[in-house]
Parts: sequence; structure tokens; C-alpha cells
Amino acid sequence: MTKPHFEKIALVGIGLIGSSLARVIRREKLTSHIAIATRSQATLDEARALDLGDSYADDATTAVRDADLVIVSVPVGSSGTVAEQIAPALKPGAIVTDVGSTKASVIAQMAPHMPEGVHFIPGHPIAGTEKSGPAAGFADLFQGRWCILTPLPGTDADAINRLGAFWEACGSRLDTMDANHHDKVLAIVSHLPHIIAYNIVGTADDLETVTQSEVIKYSASGFRDFTRLAASDPTMWRDVCLHNKDAILEMLARFSEDLSSLQRAIRWGDGDKLFELFSHTRAVRRSIIEAGQEVDLPDFGRQAVASKT
Amino acid sequence: MTKPHFEKIALVGIGLIGSSLARVIRREKLTSHIAIATRSQATLDEARALDLGDSYADDATTAVRDADLVIVSVPVGSSGTVAEQIAPALKPGAIVTDVGSTKASVIAQMAPHMPEGVHFIPGHPIAGTEKSGPAAGFADLFQGRWCILTPLPGTDADAINRLGAFWEACGSRLDTMDANHHDKVLAIVSHLPHIIAYNIVGTADDLETVTQSEVIKYSASGFRDFTRLAASDPTMWRDVCLHNKDAILEMLARFSEDLSSLQRAIRWGDGDKLFELFSHTRAVRRSIIEAGQEVDLPDFGRQAVASKT
Ligand SMILES: NC(=O)c1ccc[n+]([C@@H]2O[C@H](COP(=O)([O-])OP(=O)(O)OC[C@H]3O[C@@H](n4cnc5c(N)ncnc54)[C@H](OP(=O)(O)O)[C@@H]3O)[C@@H](O)[C@H]2O)c1
Ligand SMILES: NC(=O)c1ccc[n+]([C@@H]2O[C@H](COP(=O)([O-])OP(=O)(O)OC[C@H]3O[C@@H](n4cnc5c(N)ncnc54)[C@H](OP(=O)(O)O)[C@@H]3O)[C@@H](O)[C@H]2O)c1
Repeated sequence: MTKPHFEKIALVGIGLIGSSLARVIRREKLTSHIAIATRSQATLDEARALDLGDSYADDATTAVRDADLVIVSVPVGSSGTVAEQIAPALKPGAIVTDVGSTKASVIAQMAPHMPEGVHFIPGHPIAGTEKSGPAAGFADLFQGRWCILTPLPGTDADAINRLGAFWEACGSRLDTMDANHHDKVLAIVSHLPHIIAYNIVGTADDLETVTQSEVIKYSASGFRDFTRLAASDPTMWRDVCLHNKDAILEMLARFSEDLSSLQRAIRWGDGDKLFELFSHTRAVRRSIIEAGQEVDLPDFGRQAVASKT
Repeated sequence: MTKPHFEKIALVGIGLIGSSLARVIRREKLTSHIAIATRSQATLDEARALDLGDSYADDATTAVRDADLVIVSVPVGSSGTVAEQIAPALKPGAIVTDVGSTKASVIAQMAPHMPEGVHFIPGHPIAGTEKSGPAAGFADLFQGRWCILTPLPGTDADAINRLGAFWEACGSRLDTMDANHHDKVLAIVSHLPHIIAYNIVGTADDLETVTQSEVIKYSASGFRDFTRLAASDPTMWRDVCLHNKDAILEMLARFSEDLSSLQRAIRWGDGDKLFELFSHTRAVRRSIIEAGQEVDLPDFGRQAVASKT
């Protein structure tokens, strides 16, 4: 695909994802004008200080006016409000997309507000870190990661192609799927892991027999791996839980069922069963490394970072 | 403490931990002779090829003869057998220690075999990676990590001090506690995280609605963090589960109770409760970073590694 160019791109929401987009859009020269909008003055000032855009507005309506591409990067629970705000100002022929971690709910919230002649194409870049806000973003965030588009039936194919070319220019690999399937896939690969991580960190924090300071001192033996996901933005994750409830509850039920069986194997000292499960799971990591979705270094490469600094 | 020196150190077991010890012992010049023993010829050959020691034996009895310090680094379920093998050859006044991840069971298995006049002092370095075998070790593994000793009542104080000084010379910080308390602490900071990680990777692998290839492609959204722990050695972890059963079952019960409550909050759409838990856990990671037990970079520094290579 050839590199796309949009005369004006509006970024509504300029946190980790929005600001990473701003950076890669500028580096790749994908537009002549980046218009940034965010609701709070503090975040807007931060974006300006970081020189992320060409114009800044505290209302989304101003930013999206005349924009050819509008990217909404706010917590999924706010998608409806934002859609309602921007709708009257959208230019005919504009592409409107989002980056929300759940898709069926975002579609239900946004689609009804979209005017005739505007191409609404929901999306989700499978890339992120545990940090938030404009300063946390970086241009390489999407490099080699997948971006999933979940277009509604009947969406203009040319608009889908242009948005796809945009994400590829940002470094992403592209996939398309149905919104409901997206929500199931993400429930297992992302939402359940975050919920489990939040939960175990919560459990460790509440024990009477083991002190908080012991948990922290000895965390390198496994626990610290969970604290990264559990340090993610609470608003974002509250919204994900509220807006992908069914798929999350389904995956939680499967997880709990499997955990009961594992618990039983421990209780009855069934070493063979434990060994079998523990052998089985090793191959999964190998595949992830081979697929280029993980660094091929022990300990996530922490040791390598520590010894270089 | 001044740097200790042992005329001869015997390493029984030369995998990740044993070989990391061999490397740091040599670098820090803590002995005049490193004697290595491991049961399989293949591992022994690998240790020799890596030039980890001064002598090599496929029976532990030979290696421990005349040793002043014996360090047993084998899966915890094999501690008893190894203790029985080495007992007749131990030199009076020698210190015998281990590195096993559970302590009450190791003591029950090893202590009965220890001859009068030998100082048996169980230990556990809180350091490791998901890799195994002699090639996986490195001299810096213990740097800045804690090592917990769980000496039995009445153990010679001078011997404890000498072993403590040894671990400090290997880069560790030192702690002493009761074996039962150790087992509870490790159940929450290490054993439960590994079990949960193994379980979630197993759950994801077994779904009908989401394919294995989808799990792998989109793993960067959270799931991949769990695959590191779930790629750990199956024999080691089977043994840990079998040998710290009570503490693990206690922590699993707490975890499941908390998870049910979180599940209920999701089911009933209790956003405030979700937000509260998700905010609360953030501070834990901050404390771990401040305690020097984690790198202070987003994504465990994976991005930093990737962009430097
Ligand atoms: N973080 C990840 O790893 C990741 C990965 C893929 C997708 N996503 C999705 O990307 C979206 C943004 O996440 P992020 O990590 O970039 O978040 P972030 O860093 O916390 O930034 C959030 C942005 O949304 C704005 N915002 C927050 N609440 C709002 C509301 N009620 N109404 C309007 N705007 C609001 C914020 O504005 P103010 O600061 O001005 O309040 C800020 O500009 C979310 O939908 C998330 O699900 C996140
Ligand atoms: N890995 C970690 O992160 C970590 C951290 C702290 C403590 N530990 C503890 O350290 C100990 C060793 O772990 P590791 O990671 O170094 O393991 P490893 O890399 O798998 O090496 C295991 C060593 O034990 C030997 N071994 C295995 N089964 C044995 C048996 N039945 N009888 C006698 N020797 C046997 C192996 O010999 P062959 O290869 O010749 O069979 C090898 O030398 C374990 O008790 C573990 O709980 C591990």
C-alpha cells in the first residue's frame, strides 16, 4: 500500500494512545495538520508543551471541523458522549475511527450519532503500556503490533482501505473481524489477564500473615510480573469491565473452572497432572516469541536493560 | 562483612541456580576449588564445556568429599535423596545448604540425614528466570536480590554468619526467617503467581471460540506477561506444588474468594468498586520499583531492549 495522506487529522483524546498517534503521524508525515482536543486544560497544556500538534482545542467540536480523519482515543465509556459532541461538526466524507479496547459497546454508543456520508470504522490497536497521559506515548508503540478493524456491514471499501493504509503507515499489521468476535478474543488475551493481575495484587495486599513489605522485597520471584498490568489506568479498566461484561464473565468462568481442577490436583498430590499442564504451556511462549510479539530474552530482557544502564 | 573464602565448594546440581553460583563464585574468588556434580552425563558435559568448575563428577558423593561448603541446587522433591547420598562423605565442620523454593519440606527431607558436626543451613535466593540448565545461569543473577536463610534452632552462629557472608559476596541481601513463615510468604509472592500464570495460559489454549493463533497474535495486550512464568521448568514447579501444598492452597482460597467478589462487581456493573480496586493496586508497583526490585521503565523495559538491538 502507498503511504496515505490526510489534509487534516483530528485527535480527540491525547493520552498514551492519542499522543503515540500524534508522534508517529508527524514522523511519517501522514497529514498537513494535527488538531488535538482533550477535555481538561491540564492535559491540553501538556500536549502543547510536548509540541504534539498544530492546533489545540478544549472542545472536540472545534478540532474535528474540516478533518478528513478523526481518531477518538478516550475511555470506552465516554465514546457515546464524544460521538454526540463531534457529530454536528463532522465533514461529509470524513473517516471517524476509535481505538477503544472493546468494540460492540463502542459501536452501540457511537454509530447512532454518525451522520450520513461519514465513514465510521471502529478500530483497536493491540499495543499499549501500563502508563497513561500525553507524556507516556512514543512513535514506535504500534511497530509490529496488530491493529484490528471491526467495520460494520456496508461500510465503504475505499474508506476501510485508507484507514488500513494509515495504520500500516503507523507500523501496524492489519486485521479485520466482527466486533463480537473481537470482544471475545480480547476478553481472553487482554481483559482477563488484567483482571487477574489486579486481583492477585489485591489479594497480596490484604493478607494478615504476610506483610506488605515482604511482598515487595521478595516480588522478583514472580509477583512483580503481575504488578505491571495492575498498574494500568483505573478509569480505562473500569470502563473495559463495564463494556465487555458478557465475554469477560465467560472467560472468568472458564478460568475458575480450570483453577478448581488445578487446585484439586495440588490437594491430592497429583504430580503427573501438574507436570503435564506445566509442560504444555511452555510452547505458547515460544510461539509468541516466534511471532515477533515478545522479546527473546530471559526475564523480559530486564537484566539486559539493567546491565546497560 | 569481609569476603569469605572456602577451600573447596561443592555444587550439587548445576542448572540455572547452580551454574549462576559457579559463575559468581569464580568471579568473586570465593574458593580455591569448585567441584560440580549432577546426575546426568549430558548436563555434566555441558557444565564442563562451559568451564564452570575445577572438577566434575556424576555422583554427588565424590564432589562433596573434603568440601567446606556444599550447595544443593536440585528440584525440592529430590532433596531427600541427595541428602542421603552425600551424608556419608561430608566433612565434619562443613556447611551444607540448599536453594530450594520451599523450606519446611526440604528441612524434613534433609535434616534427618545430616551427620553430627555438619552445619545444615537451609536457604533460598529470591532470584531466577524462566530458563533452566547450566547455560541459562549468569553471575549477576543474585545482584540486589534477597536471599532468605531459615536456620534451625541451635545452629552454630558462626556457620550462619559465614554462609550469610557468602551470599552477600554473591551480591545478595540477606534475610533470616522461620521455615514455615518462608513458605507462606513464598506461596503468595511466587508460587501463586506461577500457578495462576500456568492456569491462564492453559485456559487460553483450550478455548473453542478463540483460536490459538489469535491468542498468539494479540498477546501483547496483556497475555504475554503471563507466559514468562508459565514457561518455567515443569519439574521444579510440580515439586513446589507438591511440597508447599498447605500454604499454596491457603493462598489459592484467598485469591478465589477475592476473584468471586470482583466477578460479582463486574456482573452487577459496580463501577465504583472496580475503580477502587484498580486504583489501589497501582501503588504496589511503585513500591517495588522504589525497593530496587524492578526496572523503572514501561513494559518491563522491553521497548528499550528492542530499540537498542
Ligand atoms: N493503554 C493501553 O494500553 C491501550 C491499548 C489499546 C487501546 N486502548 C484504548 O485507548 C483509549 C485511550 O486509552 P489511553 O491509554 O490513551 O488513555 P489515557 O492515557 O488515560 O488518555 C485518555 C484520554 O481520554 C480523555 N478522557 C478521559 N475521560 C474522558 C471523558 N469522560 N470524556 C472525554 N475524554 C476523556 C483524557 O482527557 P483528559 O486527560 O483531558 O481528561 C485523555 O485525553 C481507551 O479507550 C483504551 O481502551 C488503550
Ligand atoms: N529457577 C528459579 O527461578 C529458581 C529460583 C530460586 C530457587 N530455585 C530452586 O533452585 C533449585 C534448582 O532450580 P534450577 O532452576 O537451577 O533448576 P534446573 O536449571 O532445572 O537444574 C536442575 C538441576 O538439578 C538436577 N536434578 C534434577 N532432577 C534431579 C533429581 N531427581 N535428582 C538429582 N538431581 C536432579 C539437574 O540435573 P540433571 O540435569 O543432570 O538431571 C540439574 O543439575 C530448585 O529447588 C528450585 O526450586 C529456582
